[in-house]
Amino acid sequence: MLITQNLSLVRILRSTWKVDLMMIFTCVATYYLHEYIVSRAIQIPATLATLLGTAIAFFVGFNNNQAYSRWWEARTIWGAIVNDSRSWTRNILYYTVPGELTIDELAALKKRIIFRQIAFIYALKESLRRNAEGYYKQFLSETDLEQVNKESNTANAILSLHAIDLQQLSQAHAIDEFRFVQFNTLISALTDHMGRSERIRNTVFPTSYIYFTRLFIWAFVIFLTLILADAVGGWSIVIGWIIGFIFHVTHQNGMGLMDPFDEISTGIPLNQICRTIEINLLQMLGEKDIPPPVQPINQEYYL
Amino acid sequence: MLITQNLSLVRILRSTWKVDLMMIFTCVATYYLHEYIVSRAIQIPATLATLLGTAIAFFVGFNNNQAYSRWWEARTIWGAIVNDSRSWTRNILYYTVPGELTIDELAALKKRIIFRQIAFIYALKESLRRNAEGYYKQFLSETDLEQVNKESNTANAILSLHAIDLQQLSQAHAIDEFRFVQFNTLISALTDHMGRSERIRNTVFPTSYIYFTRLFIWAFVIFLTLILADAVGGWSIVIGWIIGFIFHVTHQNGMGLMDPFDEISTGIPLNQICRTIEINLLQMLGEKDIPPPVQPINQEYYL
Amino acid sequence: MLITQNLSLVRILRSTWKVDLMMIFTCVATYYLHEYIVSRAIQIPATLATLLGTAIAFFVGFNNNQAYSRWWEARTIWGAIVNDSRSWTRNILYYTVPGELTIDELAALKKRIIFRQIAFIYALKESLRRNAEGYYKQFLSETDLEQVNKESNTANAILSLHAIDLQQLSQAHAIDEFRFVQFNTLISALTDHMGRSERIRNTVFPTSYIYFTRLFIWAFVIFLTLILADAVGGWSIVIGWIIGFIFHVTHQNGMGLMDPFDEISTGIPLNQICRTIEINLLQMLGEKDIPPPVQPINQEYYL
Amino acid sequence: MLITQNLSLVRILRSTWKVDLMMIFTCVATYYLHEYIVSRAIQIPATLATLLGTAIAFFVGFNNNQAYSRWWEARTIWGAIVNDSRSWTRNILYYTVPGELTIDELAALKKRIIFRQIAFIYALKESLRRNAEGYYKQFLSETDLEQVNKESNTANAILSLHAIDLQQLSQAHAIDEFRFVQFNTLISALTDHMGRSERIRNTVFPTSYIYFTRLFIWAFVIFLTLILADAVGGWSIVIGWIIGFIFHVTHQNGMGLMDPFDEISTGIPLNQICRTIEINLLQMLGEKDIPPPVQPINQEYYL
Amino acid sequence: MLITQNLSLVRILRSTWKVDLMMIFTCVATYYLHEYIVSRAIQIPATLATLLGTAIAFFVGFNNNQAYSRWWEARTIWGAIVNDSRSWTRNILYYTVPGELTIDELAALKKRIIFRQIAFIYALKESLRRNAEGYYKQFLSETDLEQVNKESNTANAILSLHAIDLQQLSQAHAIDEFRFVQFNTLISALTDHMGRSERIRNTVFPTSYIYFTRLFIWAFVIFLTLILADAVGGWSIVIGWIIGFIFHVTHQNGMGLMDPFDEISTGIPLNQICRTIEINLLQMLGEKDIPPPVQPINQEYYL
Repeated sequence: MLITQNLSLVRILRSTWKVDLMMIFTCVATYYLHEYIVSRAIQIPATLATLLGTAIAFFVGFNNNQAYSRWWEARTIWGAIVNDSRSWTRNILYYTVPGELTIDELAALKKRIIFRQIAFIYALKESLRRNAEGYYKQFLSETDLEQVNKESNTANAILSLHAIDLQQLSQAHAIDEFRFVQFNTLISALTDHMGRSERIRNTVFPTSYIYFTRLFIWAFVIFLTLILADAVGGWSIVIGWIIGFIFHVTHQNGMGLMDPFDEISTGIPLNQICRTIEINLLQMLGEKDIPPPVQPINQEYYL
Repeated sequence: MLITQNLSLVRILRSTWKVDLMMIFTCVATYYLHEYIVSRAIQIPATLATLLGTAIAFFVGFNNNQAYSRWWEARTIWGAIVNDSRSWTRNILYYTVPGELTIDELAALKKRIIFRQIAFIYALKESLRRNAEGYYKQFLSETDLEQVNKESNTANAILSLHAIDLQQLSQAHAIDEFRFVQFNTLISALTDHMGRSERIRNTVFPTSYIYFTRLFIWAFVIFLTLILADAVGGWSIVIGWIIGFIFHVTHQNGMGLMDPFDEISTGIPLNQICRTIEINLLQMLGEKDIPPPVQPINQEYYL
Repeated sequence: MLITQNLSLVRILRSTWKVDLMMIFTCVATYYLHEYIVSRAIQIPATLATLLGTAIAFFVGFNNNQAYSRWWEARTIWGAIVNDSRSWTRNILYYTVPGELTIDELAALKKRIIFRQIAFIYALKESLRRNAEGYYKQFLSETDLEQVNKESNTANAILSLHAIDLQQLSQAHAIDEFRFVQFNTLISALTDHMGRSERIRNTVFPTSYIYFTRLFIWAFVIFLTLILADAVGGWSIVIGWIIGFIFHVTHQNGMGLMDPFDEISTGIPLNQICRTIEINLLQMLGEKDIPPPVQPINQEYYL
Repeated sequence: MLITQNLSLVRILRSTWKVDLMMIFTCVATYYLHEYIVSRAIQIPATLATLLGTAIAFFVGFNNNQAYSRWWEARTIWGAIVNDSRSWTRNILYYTVPGELTIDELAALKKRIIFRQIAFIYALKESLRRNAEGYYKQFLSETDLEQVNKESNTANAILSLHAIDLQQLSQAHAIDEFRFVQFNTLISALTDHMGRSERIRNTVFPTSYIYFTRLFIWAFVIFLTLILADAVGGWSIVIGWIIGFIFHVTHQNGMGLMDPFDEISTGIPLNQICRTIEINLLQMLGEKDIPPPVQPINQEYYL
Repeated sequence: MLITQNLSLVRILRSTWKVDLMMIFTCVATYYLHEYIVSRAIQIPATLATLLGTAIAFFVGFNNNQAYSRWWEARTIWGAIVNDSRSWTRNILYYTVPGELTIDELAALKKRIIFRQIAFIYALKESLRRNAEGYYKQFLSETDLEQVNKESNTANAILSLHAIDLQQLSQAHAIDEFRFVQFNTLISALTDHMGRSERIRNTVFPTSYIYFTRLFIWAFVIFLTLILADAVGGWSIVIGWIIGFIFHVTHQNGMGLMDPFDEISTGIPLNQICRTIEINLLQMLGEKDIPPPVQPINQEYYL
């Protein structure tokens, strides 16, 4: 998540220089094509620029809208994960009684369950970002970890451990059946949030939209340079590139939101969110050793 | 679901060559119509191209937006089926006790119910894709299969078997009434997902929108060629075809998302999703014989 | 619901011939107005066509979007009625025990309740379409029918009978309180679907949007003919009519979706949906005498 | 809610004559400004009309879309109030047993609670429309009325009385705890609908959008008249006014939906909806003295 | 929340004078650049203004739509906080019995819980607005305050205190388990509303959209002045500034809604909403000392 309001032009050019060079080269080539071949045969009517502009406007607008929707839905899902992690912890802390457990057993169990909730969010984060740091492992007991390794979907396996402990709490009368239902509703909700995150990560945005947007932008730059060459001569190279740059950057803006769980500066700041949850849960548990909030990178963005 | 970012132009031309040829033929015919008849009578004002462009932009945009909504809603429904299948399995596995059943009876029942859940998703998939592989049958016991054959809606009949077993579990005190409610809520949710999938498959998108989009694109190509013929002569055939191609392809993009459950490269990858559920459920059940994930076809798309 | 992809032009002209004739007459009148009066005084600038085009595009687009939303919401509500009818039947069939009833009494009660659910959907359909076939009556017992006649809202009265039987089942211990809650939740859901259907049927889309769309289309046709008359003479009549036809047809498309419960070819196919529910419920009940699915009319549409 | 499809032009002119006169005056003044001053200095390029047109299109479209959303959300909320009033009444009627009450006490209590529900909808209506007819008072007992007067939010106070009676029913064992939960869920839902209605009524749509729309329409009329004066002379006054009228009326259309609870012809017909609920509830209660449905005013609209 | 319909131009100029001056300076500089350099070399085609206009229209429209969505979602969340605060208070007041508590203990506990709910909304408000008035502290008992200070997230800590009291009420049999579930559902709902508010406050709108909008507006002003200079000479400075002003103000409108929880005149009026809740809750509790509603500032806006 970018937080800096002033993107330096340098930064933008640095991330687009390849395309910029290709575009300038295309404009120059088109200009000479026009000078030596096209202008002798026909004069392209300016209407074509407008027509192509309409098609591009549709594609770019459509892509950006859908990309933003994906990004915001992703953010909303992780907001719900924050909420349900807090509710889960609150319920575990305050709605359990010893029942047939000793007070110490209950305290240990509570801590194990809440630590495991932290493990859940980190495991889900790593799965969504396809990295394998294994940071989540420190929040799991050894037996838990062993159990989790048996399944390919780590986060899902962690929720199963929650379910096993919940059944245990219920059978030890540490919670009554009413509380059992409340707790289990939260496990179902976490299952849903996990599945929704996976849906967004695994569903590729229809590639034809992206492909044709790029194709049309290049066609547009060529047509525009041809049309401008009649009116402003060599300046058509500069103006063609500027307009092409604008449309390309607009398109890139949307692309940066399309896969919100990727570890990129415009993605959802999962590191920051996970740490917020970690801090909240540890404070609720009364732990002393609280990690600091995540800091923005270069004062520019959170990851 | 297409996964390749680079659609080769060859691939696109291969899937549109019929329309391409018809369009080129139309442009050529229009050009000669212009040369020998129209140009002697009147000169079509360029405004008409813009006006028709507006009408087409509306239709194409509208179709694409609604098609994408249907596609994404379909994907979301199947995401929910993933989630509820996992929750269902987790509940069956961890929230049942023997009660009046022997431990072996319970274990057999659990396995039968979870296998039946796999049968449910495959039966629903086959019904949505109107094919009759019968892959789902292997996950049903013989008595179950017999029962299911009595109804025309297979997936719905499978859910009824879930309900019968649930009532049995409840009467054998393998689950208490609180758990009964939780389990039954999942059956209701699966009924809803099934009905929503059927709604999308059975509801034809208002055909008039698609019909008029096609009509207007052809009218537009003819008008445009007429108008261009004055300005660029024979090149009007080439340019008319290019612009027509762009609008046609844009329209086709949307059409490819309109029926998301069809077995096409741009549809929802039900094979892949069903396999993911199958793997998850078998792993949760502790089965050893786990099938591999579905592989993309030609590295291009999932079905 | 139209299912044919090829609307014959004949069919379209048949449903719009009145407007077509009025439009041709208007174009002719405008042309002569231009020839003998306007052209001697002033020349209308072409900009006005564009400006009016913008206003019309807004109105037509707005109407079509809202109409489609109403249509899709209506379809979604009836999809939910399908789902909840199935869940209701499944619950009635499998979650009841004799309790203090004899097995025969329970069987009779089950059948009465499920038949009444079929009566509910047909009664709601007739109320939404404002017709009074009374097809639903055959699914009600005599005492039920008598009771229902006392209220002006038939479908609502049927749900009250459901509630009375539910309370009876509960007091006869045929269902426990947990199941009671599950069943009653479905009655509440059916109440909601009924109310939502009535909301869409009873809420007139703001008429000013429709009125001004029509007004602007006519104003546009007149202005356009005036402007074209300068450029193409008598052909302005033909082209004016074509463009007017396009905008009018686009507007009509939306109008056909605006009242989705009307008994029209573009409406929601309530006959088909009700029959689907009827078949599903009778099959679940194990009835032998199952009616066939509804057939499309002229292979063109479902009602 | 307007129901007439044909808004007479007279009616529209009557409601806009002030603005119409101001606009004609502005066009005349602009024309003479052009004739004697502007035309001697410069010629305004027509591009400016298009640019301002774009800005206005954005504002008018944005306002209309948001206004319609507010209107439809308001209608949906009141549809939910209809549904929940019916469910509430159905539950009260059929799910209560005497318990420790006599049959007469229960009957009286039922009637009091259902009448109070009618009072709730009328009290909410009066609060939303900021009028103080006090029609709701006839549906409250004296002690209820006394209690209600203690709070500034009448409808909220009525719901508290519902809650008190519900607790009483529960303690007299007229309902068990399961039914208590079902009833209370409906009270919470009514609290939500009430709060949502208040949210729409109390949240002023960002005034800057409305202010700038008006400002830009006037600027547009002036620029347009200036530009047209070059082309069509004095006719610029007529055409300037027509175009200005169109944009103004389009804007007014949206404004008429912006505050859907106001007692205006384009608002939500709360009188009609409240009466529908009143009739439904009284019929369910078996009352004989049923008021007639609300009639449209002048056959034109419901209030 | 602005309530005044007439924003004086003075007010607008006061809040934009810096940008206005920079824009006038830019227009003047551009004009002289044109006079002495550009006009000798080339003539910029007017098409470029339209093309840039399209790009800006997309950006401005996109930003405004998303900003309004954020604003309305924020308002909706706080509407839900109003509703759930009322439901919470109603439940606490009417659904508790003494159980093992004395009547006085129960009364004191009720008051403490309802006051704490008021503390919750004020604490959440202060956290969202990043100010530290500490107004909420007066509604907390000393022991509560001590507990709350241990966590960095004050509002979350207050909800934990609610949970502790709820468990106490349940163990003292002041509420039964059914009511416990109803109460706890409200705590979960408040947790969700809190988390949703934080999501909107903490998620920076993708800065690239805002950055490029500003960049394109300036580019547009320069191009437009260059193009106008050919047609109207020095007047290009005035018109360039007017058009630039319009686009800039349109953009600013959206920006004013982007961070709806900031303490600005266009934000959500948290002060007013919190006070409304405070009044409602105190009246329900029967307190005598009720604070007056918040008054608008300068009759112009609520904070």
